[in-house]
Amino acid sequence: MAIEGKDEQAREPRIRLGMVGGGAGAFIGAVHRMAARLDDQFELVAGALSSTPEKAMQSGRDLGLDPARTYGSYKEMAIREARLKNGIEAVSIVTPNHVHYEAAKEFLRRGIHVICDKPLTSNLADAKKLKKVADESDALFILTHNYTGYPMVRQAREMVQNGDLGTIRVVQVEYPQDWLTEAVEQTGAKQAVWRTDPAQSGAGGSTGDIGTHAYNLACFVTGLTLESLAADLDSFVEGRRLDDNAHVMLRFEGGAKGMLWCSQVAPGNENGLKIRVYGTKGGIEWTQADPNYLWFTPFGEPKRLITRNGAGAGAAAARVSRIPSGHPEGYLEAFATIYTEAARAINAAKKGAKIDKDVIYPTVDDGVKGVAFVEACVASSKKNGAWVKL
Amino acid sequence: MAIEGKDEQAREPRIRLGMVGGGAGAFIGAVHRMAARLDDQFELVAGALSSTPEKAMQSGRDLGLDPARTYGSYKEMAIREARLKNGIEAVSIVTPNHVHYEAAKEFLRRGIHVICDKPLTSNLADAKKLKKVADESDALFILTHNYTGYPMVRQAREMVQNGDLGTIRVVQVEYPQDWLTEAVEQTGAKQAVWRTDPAQSGAGGSTGDIGTHAYNLACFVTGLTLESLAADLDSFVEGRRLDDNAHVMLRFEGGAKGMLWCSQVAPGNENGLKIRVYGTKGGIEWTQADPNYLWFTPFGEPKRLITRNGAGAGAAAARVSRIPSGHPEGYLEAFATIYTEAARAINAAKKGAKIDKDVIYPTVDDGVKGVAFVEACVASSKKNGAWVKL
Amino acid sequence: MAIEGKDEQAREPRIRLGMVGGGAGAFIGAVHRMAARLDDQFELVAGALSSTPEKAMQSGRDLGLDPARTYGSYKEMAIREARLKNGIEAVSIVTPNHVHYEAAKEFLRRGIHVICDKPLTSNLADAKKLKKVADESDALFILTHNYTGYPMVRQAREMVQNGDLGTIRVVQVEYPQDWLTEAVEQTGAKQAVWRTDPAQSGAGGSTGDIGTHAYNLACFVTGLTLESLAADLDSFVEGRRLDDNAHVMLRFEGGAKGMLWCSQVAPGNENGLKIRVYGTKGGIEWTQADPNYLWFTPFGEPKRLITRNGAGAGAAAARVSRIPSGHPEGYLEAFATIYTEAARAINAAKKGAKIDKDVIYPTVDDGVKGVAFVEACVASSKKNGAWVKL
Amino acid sequence: MAIEGKDEQAREPRIRLGMVGGGAGAFIGAVHRMAARLDDQFELVAGALSSTPEKAMQSGRDLGLDPARTYGSYKEMAIREARLKNGIEAVSIVTPNHVHYEAAKEFLRRGIHVICDKPLTSNLADAKKLKKVADESDALFILTHNYTGYPMVRQAREMVQNGDLGTIRVVQVEYPQDWLTEAVEQTGAKQAVWRTDPAQSGAGGSTGDIGTHAYNLACFVTGLTLESLAADLDSFVEGRRLDDNAHVMLRFEGGAKGMLWCSQVAPGNENGLKIRVYGTKGGIEWTQADPNYLWFTPFGEPKRLITRNGAGAGAAAARVSRIPSGHPEGYLEAFATIYTEAARAINAAKKGAKIDKDVIYPTVDDGVKGVAFVEACVASSKKNGAWVKL
Repeated sequence: MAIEGKDEQAREPRIRLGMVGGGAGAFIGAVHRMAARLDDQFELVAGALSSTPEKAMQSGRDLGLDPARTYGSYKEMAIREARLKNGIEAVSIVTPNHVHYEAAKEFLRRGIHVICDKPLTSNLADAKKLKKVADESDALFILTHNYTGYPMVRQAREMVQNGDLGTIRVVQVEYPQDWLTEAVEQTGAKQAVWRTDPAQSGAGGSTGDIGTHAYNLACFVTGLTLESLAADLDSFVEGRRLDDNAHVMLRFEGGAKGMLWCSQVAPGNENGLKIRVYGTKGGIEWTQADPNYLWFTPFGEPKRLITRNGAGAGAAAARVSRIPSGHPEGYLEAFATIYTEAARAINAAKKGAKIDKDVIYPTVDDGVKGVAFVEACVASSKKNGAWVKL
Repeated sequence: MAIEGKDEQAREPRIRLGMVGGGAGAFIGAVHRMAARLDDQFELVAGALSSTPEKAMQSGRDLGLDPARTYGSYKEMAIREARLKNGIEAVSIVTPNHVHYEAAKEFLRRGIHVICDKPLTSNLADAKKLKKVADESDALFILTHNYTGYPMVRQAREMVQNGDLGTIRVVQVEYPQDWLTEAVEQTGAKQAVWRTDPAQSGAGGSTGDIGTHAYNLACFVTGLTLESLAADLDSFVEGRRLDDNAHVMLRFEGGAKGMLWCSQVAPGNENGLKIRVYGTKGGIEWTQADPNYLWFTPFGEPKRLITRNGAGAGAAAARVSRIPSGHPEGYLEAFATIYTEAARAINAAKKGAKIDKDVIYPTVDDGVKGVAFVEACVASSKKNGAWVKL
Repeated sequence: MAIEGKDEQAREPRIRLGMVGGGAGAFIGAVHRMAARLDDQFELVAGALSSTPEKAMQSGRDLGLDPARTYGSYKEMAIREARLKNGIEAVSIVTPNHVHYEAAKEFLRRGIHVICDKPLTSNLADAKKLKKVADESDALFILTHNYTGYPMVRQAREMVQNGDLGTIRVVQVEYPQDWLTEAVEQTGAKQAVWRTDPAQSGAGGSTGDIGTHAYNLACFVTGLTLESLAADLDSFVEGRRLDDNAHVMLRFEGGAKGMLWCSQVAPGNENGLKIRVYGTKGGIEWTQADPNYLWFTPFGEPKRLITRNGAGAGAAAARVSRIPSGHPEGYLEAFATIYTEAARAINAAKKGAKIDKDVIYPTVDDGVKGVAFVEACVASSKKNGAWVKL
Repeated sequence: MAIEGKDEQAREPRIRLGMVGGGAGAFIGAVHRMAARLDDQFELVAGALSSTPEKAMQSGRDLGLDPARTYGSYKEMAIREARLKNGIEAVSIVTPNHVHYEAAKEFLRRGIHVICDKPLTSNLADAKKLKKVADESDALFILTHNYTGYPMVRQAREMVQNGDLGTIRVVQVEYPQDWLTEAVEQTGAKQAVWRTDPAQSGAGGSTGDIGTHAYNLACFVTGLTLESLAADLDSFVEGRRLDDNAHVMLRFEGGAKGMLWCSQVAPGNENGLKIRVYGTKGGIEWTQADPNYLWFTPFGEPKRLITRNGAGAGAAAARVSRIPSGHPEGYLEAFATIYTEAARAINAAKKGAKIDKDVIYPTVDDGVKGVAFVEACVASSKKNGAWVKL
């Protein structure tokens, strides 16, 4: 309840950051930049912001970048920045999926830390190759499954770990949207075009774009490992080449069961990521659109509304919360938390220190799992919903 | 918005009603009695309230029944009442599932209308036999899928019929509860004991008790016919003999898809029946716990909150609504609507008149479908979630 | 959480009930009849349903009353029924306010119990006279401040009594509606016409019609006595003769403070009665439109959602609750509880027994306070919002 | 519904910013810094972060400031920075209230733009002097009534201006909190100590700290001017020297009426700023804790949920919104909007250009009104709630 201040940590020097993709008209690039800025741990100093050189230069100017560090390609950026005395220490990759692997490789091989948007890659083969590259690199690889940055998601995870829910039995996760209800990709809407293009997105449509978030969230919160799934995928919009709705039944190791629904054709749902977890001792519920709340019901007691930084919230949430309860934090703050966790890891790496065990960020392994999830969904659906092992 | 009165219809003489089951300690029997009373269309005059004669007599006394019309068995009641000059015209059957068929048969064969709790029977063979008896009888058969009596459920159905949602693509229906989270049937809790006993309930646990409601609601609102399903059923509580959690994927005729989740082991869910329907033009959402609201989003417009008897609600809802908007109606009112619809049908039958086309109540056919749904769930789950045709 | 049945009490013979007012087109008459029926404690057997004899007869026929007991005036009904062997034992008065006193008097003087709609009368002089008559009568007087019948209102009251909130400091109560936003009384809308007519309603418009409910609820829940108030009343709609919006500051004995807002010109509010109470140890919040929930925050702990018949609800709520949690009860059930409490009191009176201390219903004293509240609001507003003692 | 990107505007060079107050342990200083950073329009380069020199230096180090520009007093900072070639162009003043006037004066007189926390000053005399200084300065003065930066608050204001609500009749605004329910100022809690100290806060406690926000919001949204008020203030916590609960009735020019409630002793309210506005044609409702939603009811139509950047939201909201609907923005984003509006104004001022008419920020005049509001509340309460003109 208190309105006490939270001291910023004594700040390390800002990490020099480059960006691949994210030029004019991009959605997620601007998000990454705001996220990188919020906690003042990064300074954007270079960019290969578009595959169109003209647009790359203009976007660099708009962002106030030094023209000498505004590049026409990520490869050029990787090569030159690696040679600069004060070249970038980290790079954000915010392109469509099919570029992730090739781009990440260039930086990882040069010891530049990579912060990469999800899904990891557009196919599992690339994902595995990227994992190999990341594992062999001294540089860190951070995947921006940004929803894991929400304080109340951390709270949920902590409560599961603490045993507040008992043994997990049922996981219901869903991620409905409505923005692809009509065939907007056929009218040139940029965000829709690449997300519905197998060449850029991979085999999954809604499964790749948002299903991976839902799957990642379910595993993050519960700590469970998915054993197998049975999926029924649809492309409801005529002419659409990738799934825009997916119904998936889940079986976790140890016996918990779940359902996952993702959809981009569900009118009235803007960005409806939601997770519910039920165990022998209690249940929790969290909704992304109202992220400062976590419902918790200890079985046999009244439902409780735990709020970010409010009474009942624990250390894991407090650690990544900036302002008092009742003052809502949102999507950008959660995204910024991924960046700030990355900064903590990078700063430790710079000193050769061990990363603090409290620092949490999605890894290349999470990324491989996400792509495997997408391919398993597609495979199961092609086999009429047969169970497919992960 | 107005607070205008709604005239009761000029009342027909009350229909003379008997009851099978519903003695002391029963939950649903009392509900049926309140539902029958609310709109003053019935008068309870006879009962076979328990299979234990002593308890049957005591329960009859408690309810103020004439001892001469308090029977020790439903068969006795059927025989005697059929002979009385002013014997019962209708009977409510509110026993555990396995009794429904035999009891209903006795009354239907004697021309006494039957109002029967769901699921129709404890197995599909009985269900089909009961359908045959009902089809051959002059008496009516009404199944109390009570949730179809909610005004906003009627509103939802009307909106689908009016095309407000366009072509239906996705149906998400769920019915979580938490009261069987622990093995209460092993401690003798009456409601739990019979619901988890295959001999009394049939092959389905949660699927029969609440899954049938969810399935019925999905079909009622959308007008769709289920083509096939794939189910994954669990009995999470050790020693439980029937499913207490079910994950089901749905394929409807015409291409719509859906998911159905029912559970009795989801802490924090008291009686969480909820349906969401999405089409090419809009989406709706309704939650039983807050039944006076219907969310409607025409695609591309703001979400609207349609309220019972409020602006935006149509004729189908107004027809079954008693009081002005903002004055909440609840579960008993919705249940009473089933009774009042039954009364309208019975009164028409008494006059040999055609039942008004606006009168809606669940039929024996809905009941057969419900039992078929349960058996399909069980069959699919046994075949590792293979698709089973309905 | 359980779905156990609640045994009805062994029923006493139904109380023979008459009704004054409530003919065709009335809103509240039908509500009283449903409320009287729900728990099966009353049987409507006589009526003076309209001051227009023709309409009175027709309304009686519609309700299935014996024509011999359908009267043209309440006085006639009182005289004749008092002489009948099985004449009415109680009467419901559901007319506009200005009739309450004269009508109630006729029945009370003849020993017939009175169940009367609120506000008690159209002016304080009548209220005091009615109190005198009621005090001198052997018959009971029950005022239908129906919102006190909601289980979660009982729960709130019990929690205050138990000290769960500590010492009460602040009471915020409001009752906004929107149905008089436009001058519907000028177009003949029956419910609006009499409610905006000083001759029928008294000096208060919104203050009398709904402000009295809010005031009564605040006192009922907190147990506090209002010491003085300062009010600012408006008639926003041109030509309206009574207030349609009232802002009132409250001072309670002992130092608690409060605000009361009632309005009939607040678009978007259907029937928005809401109360919030804050003490040294906790706070509660209850909203009539969602009546099965009570929010409770023990200071320094997470907010809890207490549900009707759910975990955390106590004996006072359970006593007046009919069905399991998650199965919503509504306005009619709360109204029915007032009738059932009245029946308990009447049945005790018939036996010469003491009324059980758990039986709670609003009395003539509550009614006098309500009318005094209205007149104090009007007086304060005329004196530019000066504090007026109650 | 779309997930299209929003291009950042081509960025001007960052504005060089200093800060007065906001050292270790402060709440609002860190908020100002994050707000200044989010949209990348400012660079913090100097600070007088504490009145304790040692703490000032340490805080500067923690923030990565150049020690040469970390000052022991705001006066020293003003003098030196004004002489530097690249000295600060703007300063944020985030101290307790009583320092605002003296500090602001030093910067305004030197042509340095001032961004100042609210309330403007601790008393009206200072407020008027500050207004004079600001009016005479070429530098801009921006007051951080941050809640006016929320997109849906802008939306509400635009809808009122567009006439969507018709003529405003009723304004209900409230700002309850609970963090001062107990006497935490007596245990040394820093945020509580100065807020309950008349010497630092001024004559108002909750009225100054949060009541001014509520009052400002009401005027901002409705465009109305407060004519007079009647207030009843309390200090419920023993020993507290300033009000912790205030009940205020409002009369606006033109005839609209309102109520304002602010409290810091209402358990269960974290930061419950809420506004409801009702007019002849419709009503709106906005709650700070769920800031991405605006409820709008056109009279006689269903309630609509307008979402930030969703369907139904207009240009005023879109202009200050960063990310797609369904991706919640929060408190920091709204605060950042005040900074970004300030940057737009400052950048225009630097070029001698006119400030774009769409740029909106609270001014020194708003600040004077806020302090006058506090003093009027205190004066009215001392006169037993008499109406006091503003």
